[in-house]
Amino acid sequence: MNAPTAFTHLVPEVLQRAVPPALIDALKARFADRCSTAMAVREQHGRDESSFDVPPPAAVVFAESTADVADAVALASAHSVPIIPFGVGSSLEGHLLAVQGGISVDVSRMNKVLAVNAEDLTVTVQAGVTRKQLNDAVKSTGLFFPIDPGADASIGGMSATRASGTNAVRYGTMRENVLALEVVTASGEVIRTGTRAKKSSAGYDLTRLFVGSEGTLGVITEITVRLYPFPEAISAATSSFPSIEAAVLTTIEMIQLGVPIARVELIDVNTVRMVNKHSKLSLREEPMLLMEFHGSPNSVKEQAETVQELAKEHGGQDFEWASTPEERTRLWTARHNALFAALQSRPGCRAISTDTCVPISRLADCLLESVQEADDSGLPYFLVGHVGDGNFHFGYLLDPNDPKERDVAETLNHKLVARALSLGGTCTGEHGVGLHKMGFLVDEAGAGAVEMMRTIKRALDPKNIMNPGKIFSM
Amino acid sequence: MNAPTAFTHLVPEVLQRAVPPALIDALKARFADRCSTAMAVREQHGRDESSFDVPPPAAVVFAESTADVADAVALASAHSVPIIPFGVGSSLEGHLLAVQGGISVDVSRMNKVLAVNAEDLTVTVQAGVTRKQLNDAVKSTGLFFPIDPGADASIGGMSATRASGTNAVRYGTMRENVLALEVVTASGEVIRTGTRAKKSSAGYDLTRLFVGSEGTLGVITEITVRLYPFPEAISAATSSFPSIEAAVLTTIEMIQLGVPIARVELIDVNTVRMVNKHSKLSLREEPMLLMEFHGSPNSVKEQAETVQELAKEHGGQDFEWASTPEERTRLWTARHNALFAALQSRPGCRAISTDTCVPISRLADCLLESVQEADDSGLPYFLVGHVGDGNFHFGYLLDPNDPKERDVAETLNHKLVARALSLGGTCTGEHGVGLHKMGFLVDEAGAGAVEMMRTIKRALDPKNIMNPGKIFSM
Repeated sequence: MNAPTAFTHLVPEVLQRAVPPALIDALKARFADRCSTAMAVREQHGRDESSFDVPPPAAVVFAESTADVADAVALASAHSVPIIPFGVGSSLEGHLLAVQGGISVDVSRMNKVLAVNAEDLTVTVQAGVTRKQLNDAVKSTGLFFPIDPGADASIGGMSATRASGTNAVRYGTMRENVLALEVVTASGEVIRTGTRAKKSSAGYDLTRLFVGSEGTLGVITEITVRLYPFPEAISAATSSFPSIEAAVLTTIEMIQLGVPIARVELIDVNTVRMVNKHSKLSLREEPMLLMEFHGSPNSVKEQAETVQELAKEHGGQDFEWASTPEERTRLWTARHNALFAALQSRPGCRAISTDTCVPISRLADCLLESVQEADDSGLPYFLVGHVGDGNFHFGYLLDPNDPKERDVAETLNHKLVARALSLGGTCTGEHGVGLHKMGFLVDEAGAGAVEMMRTIKRALDPKNIMNPGKIFSM
Repeated sequence: MNAPTAFTHLVPEVLQRAVPPALIDALKARFADRCSTAMAVREQHGRDESSFDVPPPAAVVFAESTADVADAVALASAHSVPIIPFGVGSSLEGHLLAVQGGISVDVSRMNKVLAVNAEDLTVTVQAGVTRKQLNDAVKSTGLFFPIDPGADASIGGMSATRASGTNAVRYGTMRENVLALEVVTASGEVIRTGTRAKKSSAGYDLTRLFVGSEGTLGVITEITVRLYPFPEAISAATSSFPSIEAAVLTTIEMIQLGVPIARVELIDVNTVRMVNKHSKLSLREEPMLLMEFHGSPNSVKEQAETVQELAKEHGGQDFEWASTPEERTRLWTARHNALFAALQSRPGCRAISTDTCVPISRLADCLLESVQEADDSGLPYFLVGHVGDGNFHFGYLLDPNDPKERDVAETLNHKLVARALSLGGTCTGEHGVGLHKMGFLVDEAGAGAVEMMRTIKRALDPKNIMNPGKIFSM
């Protein structure tokens, strides 16, 4: 059993499965110094951005090809030992933790851009390519890949967690943007799903079964995603509001009107203060919408005029524009650094991030009650949201050595998730279930649907070696 | 075994499973006159728009509720008898045929619009609601459901086949537009998948596993889909081109430029002639693009200007506009009636429809060689295409009593699919696999991926009673 730690009340107690020396020997024989059992390497692969402490994996294999992954999986399968895929380690929900022991397969060296098909608006990459690397690789084509979860995550990891982020309100999530995959199955076989055609009705949608499967059905080794023409015009603007409610109502109305806004982020006043300090900005210290408009110059102008009108009706300030690429980058970097700005605001703290998403009309209800609860708790927090999708994140900033603060944070999260579910929403908009949301998943999907997921898992991974103990208990 | 018919060379020979009288008795006890064994009713449910002849189902149950479906499935399961869901009967690939015998469950009476959530841009309907009925029900909200496969199909059937059609180039397919489902599983249990939230990372994407599963994993009973604000401005236009190539190159370029065109349909000169005759139109008898632009008045104007310029470069005629709703409806009705216009052009004929989809840059290659082959064959045909997605349909018009003509048509289809696959495409863009494309699916996806589909099927439907013998042989 795991040694009890401060956080084990959140991690189901399961057997750490034995990793026989014969497997380690076989991996070392196959991978030489690309199989490491050094404690520092194991520990680095035994944690992520979540706040769980579990023992590290028994070894780390640095895969450089699909064949490497297939061989590592086949060897682990022969010994019924878990395989945990690892990209850049940016998971927020404990996906990378070796809760049942096993071997971490690090795909970060699988970082080749395999094919840029600019004329088809697609690109095929290995799983370890990060989103920034991908965008650098396609820059000269005039195309871009919009999905942006903040972290410079690997495309493999983003596929496995069905990631999205700031641009999803216009361009969709990994669900909509992955066209095809190469996957190593639990037996070490290599299969392909999907094609580069934009649509298909050919059989079960295995692509979307793997997108969001969190490594529990196989290891994603190659991904083909859609690209988009870089917009002719881009403008970013901020607008400050007298209240969160006013900002949210403005957002709801622009979505209901069908404004094709590319990004609309809510930043609460706590976060504005933290960001100002961290990024040396002087944003007005009020709840704020940070927006971006993409399109032809005329379309950008029209969108902005519509939104300015809506904002005005809710007491929003005039837009402050960031029209040059440099100003835009500064603003979005500041937004993406909100987590670090928040962590800096309370030295030594850890953040527990929530991730609910609700139907857009219920966003104000869900958010305002949860803000009230968070304020009442006295726990410091920050609040940011991809509000155009009804998705937002509280980050509760807690002292990791104070179990009471953790309990307060978890209670707030429980209440928030219960509220989101009662409003027709989901317990996770983009981070995934991982370890943290297994209980919530049953509340959300129902026991029957979760049992169907388990049935699929058992059928495709009969030895339960693919990232076991994530999404649901097995 | 099936009695041999003219078409059985295309239908795998499988056992018609016995339907015990005890099951019929139990169904009659439960459903009274809503369970019919009248030959006329069975025959009506034993065919679709495909050209296969197989014996009809043993009985038809007219379900009026999810509980009806669940009970019918549970009874059939107790006797290991197949269940074939039936919507409006518009399948083109034999999905509705009782190839292994069994019970047809007709959901057309499950035609309630359950919830219009206009402020969230969603609607929840029973499976038997048709797309026109859905659009009538939401008309007063200023929203619409864009997916339009031509036929007034049921939303359940459209979900089950991952349908799309003319608007998909802008609004996506059923894959992108179904948010949540209620499904009766193979054991007669009722589960729900997804939520009304726009995005989620909560566990396996069961919604998209059922979308496109062609009734083989369960019966879809309720569907929540996305709606869109009715565009402020809509314009439709036709442009005639000196060649198919010119029309296709114009299309490829508009997609590569990112023009958000709502519809762009290719109609070849054969089809223009047939449509003119059938719909009493006087379209110029040349290859034609039929287009529709949605957006603000300015955006529609900009889009149209860009496309006109591209068309001109390829020798396209000036646009002929259809700006009033009546003119537009007349044009699109004519397009949707292309199949009937074609059938009328050769009295007594049957059409075999192809459905390949390729990456947009390969569309000209794929189409032009296939046109040449079709012309060389001497078989009459029509050709229409959702060319903005790289998807097109040949309809070969053959004498059903002439096996040679059928062989010619099937040979053309084989060559076309092989070409599409070699260009990175799919054997079916929107019709589904059904009976007709099982062999092609293996060519496209590979034996490993198809075996994974079978594994999922066996796990979720261990008695193989859900529409067996479709997608893959079992």
